[in-house]
Amino acid sequence: MHLGLIGLGKMGGNMRERIRRAGHEVVGFDRNPEVSDVDSLKAMVEALPAPRTVWVMVPAGEATRATVAELGEILDEGDLVIDGGNSRFTDDAVNAETLAAKGIGYLDCGVSGGVWGLENGYGLMVGGDAEHVERAMPIFDALRPEGPREEGFVHAGAVGAGHYAKMVHNGIEYGLMQAYAEGYELLAAKDIVTDVHGSFKAWTRGTVVRSWLLDLLVKALEEDPGLAKISGYTEDSGEGRWTVEEGIANAVPMPVISAALFARFASRQDDSPAMKAVSALRNQFGGHATRAADAGPSSGSGSTD
Amino acid sequence: MHLGLIGLGKMGGNMRERIRRAGHEVVGFDRNPEVSDVDSLKAMVEALPAPRTVWVMVPAGEATRATVAELGEILDEGDLVIDGGNSRFTDDAVNAETLAAKGIGYLDCGVSGGVWGLENGYGLMVGGDAEHVERAMPIFDALRPEGPREEGFVHAGAVGAGHYAKMVHNGIEYGLMQAYAEGYELLAAKDIVTDVHGSFKAWTRGTVVRSWLLDLLVKALEEDPGLAKISGYTEDSGEGRWTVEEGIANAVPMPVISAALFARFASRQDDSPAMKAVSALRNQFGGHATRAADAGPSSGSGSTD
Amino acid sequence: MHLGLIGLGKMGGNMRERIRRAGHEVVGFDRNPEVSDVDSLKAMVEALPAPRTVWVMVPAGEATRATVAELGEILDEGDLVIDGGNSRFTDDAVNAETLAAKGIGYLDCGVSGGVWGLENGYGLMVGGDAEHVERAMPIFDALRPEGPREEGFVHAGAVGAGHYAKMVHNGIEYGLMQAYAEGYELLAAKDIVTDVHGSFKAWTRGTVVRSWLLDLLVKALEEDPGLAKISGYTEDSGEGRWTVEEGIANAVPMPVISAALFARFASRQDDSPAMKAVSALRNQFGGHATRAADAGPSSGSGSTD
Amino acid sequence: MHLGLIGLGKMGGNMRERIRRAGHEVVGFDRNPEVSDVDSLKAMVEALPAPRTVWVMVPAGEATRATVAELGEILDEGDLVIDGGNSRFTDDAVNAETLAAKGIGYLDCGVSGGVWGLENGYGLMVGGDAEHVERAMPIFDALRPEGPREEGFVHAGAVGAGHYAKMVHNGIEYGLMQAYAEGYELLAAKDIVTDVHGSFKAWTRGTVVRSWLLDLLVKALEEDPGLAKISGYTEDSGEGRWTVEEGIANAVPMPVISAALFARFASRQDDSPAMKAVSALRNQFGGHATRAADAGPSSGSGSTD
Repeated sequence: MHLGLIGLGKMGGNMRERIRRAGHEVVGFDRNPEVSDVDSLKAMVEALPAPRTVWVMVPAGEATRATVAELGEILDEGDLVIDGGNSRFTDDAVNAETLAAKGIGYLDCGVSGGVWGLENGYGLMVGGDAEHVERAMPIFDALRPEGPREEGFVHAGAVGAGHYAKMVHNGIEYGLMQAYAEGYELLAAKDIVTDVHGSFKAWTRGTVVRSWLLDLLVKALEEDPGLAKISGYTEDSGEGRWTVEEGIANAVPMPVISAALFARFASRQDDSPAMKAVSALRNQFGGHATRAADAGPSSGSGSTD
Repeated sequence: MHLGLIGLGKMGGNMRERIRRAGHEVVGFDRNPEVSDVDSLKAMVEALPAPRTVWVMVPAGEATRATVAELGEILDEGDLVIDGGNSRFTDDAVNAETLAAKGIGYLDCGVSGGVWGLENGYGLMVGGDAEHVERAMPIFDALRPEGPREEGFVHAGAVGAGHYAKMVHNGIEYGLMQAYAEGYELLAAKDIVTDVHGSFKAWTRGTVVRSWLLDLLVKALEEDPGLAKISGYTEDSGEGRWTVEEGIANAVPMPVISAALFARFASRQDDSPAMKAVSALRNQFGGHATRAADAGPSSGSGSTD
Repeated sequence: MHLGLIGLGKMGGNMRERIRRAGHEVVGFDRNPEVSDVDSLKAMVEALPAPRTVWVMVPAGEATRATVAELGEILDEGDLVIDGGNSRFTDDAVNAETLAAKGIGYLDCGVSGGVWGLENGYGLMVGGDAEHVERAMPIFDALRPEGPREEGFVHAGAVGAGHYAKMVHNGIEYGLMQAYAEGYELLAAKDIVTDVHGSFKAWTRGTVVRSWLLDLLVKALEEDPGLAKISGYTEDSGEGRWTVEEGIANAVPMPVISAALFARFASRQDDSPAMKAVSALRNQFGGHATRAADAGPSSGSGSTD
Repeated sequence: MHLGLIGLGKMGGNMRERIRRAGHEVVGFDRNPEVSDVDSLKAMVEALPAPRTVWVMVPAGEATRATVAELGEILDEGDLVIDGGNSRFTDDAVNAETLAAKGIGYLDCGVSGGVWGLENGYGLMVGGDAEHVERAMPIFDALRPEGPREEGFVHAGAVGAGHYAKMVHNGIEYGLMQAYAEGYELLAAKDIVTDVHGSFKAWTRGTVVRSWLLDLLVKALEEDPGLAKISGYTEDSGEGRWTVEEGIANAVPMPVISAALFARFASRQDDSPAMKAVSALRNQFGGHATRAADAGPSSGSGSTD
């Protein structure tokens, strides 16, 4: 089938390639003329036979909302828009309503797989009406991994459910990574353990903790022994925050995923204002030594508190 | 080669089978005569050609310590004992010293793989001297999964390092499971998501969170939709506790693994004494409603605190 | 001075009393005619000399927003509205703008002190313009505790800052209560400690942990030894959630306050879906026993994982 | 009465002074001759009338254990030893047994109050036999704050219970400090809040969060506005670790106290090995930018994971 694909960055570009390999016609548009197939959004739309299917793969938030709004202006009744970006699920109801007013369908699709998706396929979580899902299925089948459809694709529910499932997927991902990371730090701290890398590698088959993330950590340790070349400064991309916010909104305890999120926040602080307060308090009640900003420890003698 | 194997429960029995399939001679001893190959520990020892290798696979703690001590009495100089149970790593130095006094070697070996190990092989983490590791390698090769040795086996370091690595493995396991569990609860709580099981299944290929534990969770959801048949009461077997204790001893922050451990503790409480205290406090300062033990909520009117 | 006071529940009623004791004229309005001084909001407004000051003390959220909107209709240019409820700080900018369009001033005021405020005075945190704060100062002075003004009152910043400070105050409160509660549970669990209540009481003077909340916990333990009469089911009123959300929005790690919030969520669950998932996983990989929903433990034999 | 007091550092020296002010005879011994009343432990013992009471106030651990052992050699049947240091409660049973073998009594006493105790009095938690507690009561009365005995003193239970209660007291203290600290950081991060110090000061009367620790934080903010002069590097003295270990041993969930402990560990790390692992993983699957050790962020383009 034919597909319009907006956004040809690292993700979108790979997806275009994978869809084409499956035998579909993709007209890609990107602001960067070096990678774009057409000159404009309008040109992309005109190059597609009706009813059209257009996949949006641009940064979540304002860029996606603006693109969907613009598509609402230039697409026709009966066309279908799929937002495959990492949009917050709350954007989906708004997008769907905007397009529905013009008779245009809408699906939200969470996409997992990162830079490995071109070869491995992408995990897909979709929200929206069944008839729209059905129409876009050839594209979903092209993108998802080989094997049974249900092992790489789900119609998770109503509009928003696809991005919601992807959000939860990423929240889980935060927790998984932090669990491996804590274990890594502990193993590396223990003197009797002399082969940390080898221990992680030995877990890649047969053990309970084997996973793709574990394989990647082993690969990272091979490329950079002791992780000596990188710092612990760790960004977060938003979906972990949303997951915890949804936990709060739904009264679901999230001790692990929130702890993983907060560890990232803390990793970006040169000095923690909170810990300054704790240190100041210890000094106040116990005469405990504090460390001057940008200096070594001052003298002081502890109390029993 | 020949191996004496003590403890033929679910784990030990499967291991005997897997080692035999690899062509080795195993003399197994268990207190249960229905599964034991010999009548006594002594008979097992006598049935083995010197120098002997004996694998201990009995419950961690007192049972293992007693078995090792008994082996110290009846084995000869040059023999080798391997503790493959879930012993605390602090037991290993004691065991090794006891046996060394009689010229008997000692290895500790963490074993992962659960009930699936017979078919998949077991992940093995070993601590001790290189010469002993070398001697027992045929057995390790029989037990570990097919494929490159280093993907299912590691000589992690000195005596204790094998159990230490296994302890950390299990601590990580706690964190991984809790991460999936929190995501499961959130997804199940959200009305727009109508296919929770399908969402997890769709993650099993291509996504960042794919893992063996995820496969098992999908299997559990298939066997018991909505997990309706089981309660959330969750035991812990000790290794999660040790991991957090080691985090404390080595000043390694363990927010995720400790949270996973504490969630298990809480799952076993009918009513939390701590939360009684919080509820009592809210009532004291704000006149907030409390709920009587074994009753519905009492009336009360909140304050702004 | 004269004050209109809307909302005469437990908090508002006590505040009317305290303000009157300080010699001010309060015209109180409440939907409940038994406690109201006037028949209607309009009657309240007409009973006040211009320029008027009106204090809103109704439930946060829709009720407060509607009341402020209505006041915007019936008040005059130069009047002043103070929202003393537990509104989310994000409401304040909206309220202030609505009223500013009609020349009416706005202050937000966080109020702490609970049912004890009538006698002890209320801690007050105010946001808004300095001139408005100045005008309402006689009322703030009447409400706050005896002693230096700055020990019970702060002009914390711009519109919204008062409710923000109150939100953070309540978030801290969550953490403080949970800290005492965890200590309570541990002390109560230890056999060698035979006087838990006495231990808490002994902390009320001289120690580092002495506080008003500690006094209240001692009082609760006196009234209900062992807290036998209440359950651990604990509500949350919203401000703890907002605090963690703000932590997330501002990349401030909140491990303690979020843990306190999640402990409340968990206290309200009969059975945790997350822990069902963990229990199901343990059963899958290790054949570990699970407990049937509404039943005792089933048999099963553990593995080493 | 007469008291022998061993250890005249900041705590012991102040305690000697407070006990003398109450009219008792104190013979103090310290290795530092400038503060010691006698030349040796033996001289101290000889200066006391039998039956003697000796208070040990030296660093917890080896120093205290050695001192108690030495006292066992030179004291007589019927004498009484009190360990007032911050010993782990597990030391108490050993100490008591050692001394009991010679007919010498033993009490363990947790002491709170820090450098403020000389003026305010010390909170005291005592473990041991009632008859020994009775004998030492004049000293406890001298040390504890003015007011009813039970508000500054408790006979908490059997040998060890005093140190156990003190350990829990300190664990709670960790949680309380971290709760204030998180609130401090959030309030300081919010632009609409312009008077953070004033907000904390306004909480010192009337509010739910008022406490002695809050008073100290306000004092610290007065002495060092914005806490600009100190770093967040925060030591821990051991009792927080023991509290979490006891939580683990007794299956008591400790999310808040453990989070406070882990925040201290993290405050002392220049770069977190765990977060290096997380950062490495993000780079592996998503091509996310990492930050080189000791450098600014490298370029990279994110994926949707």
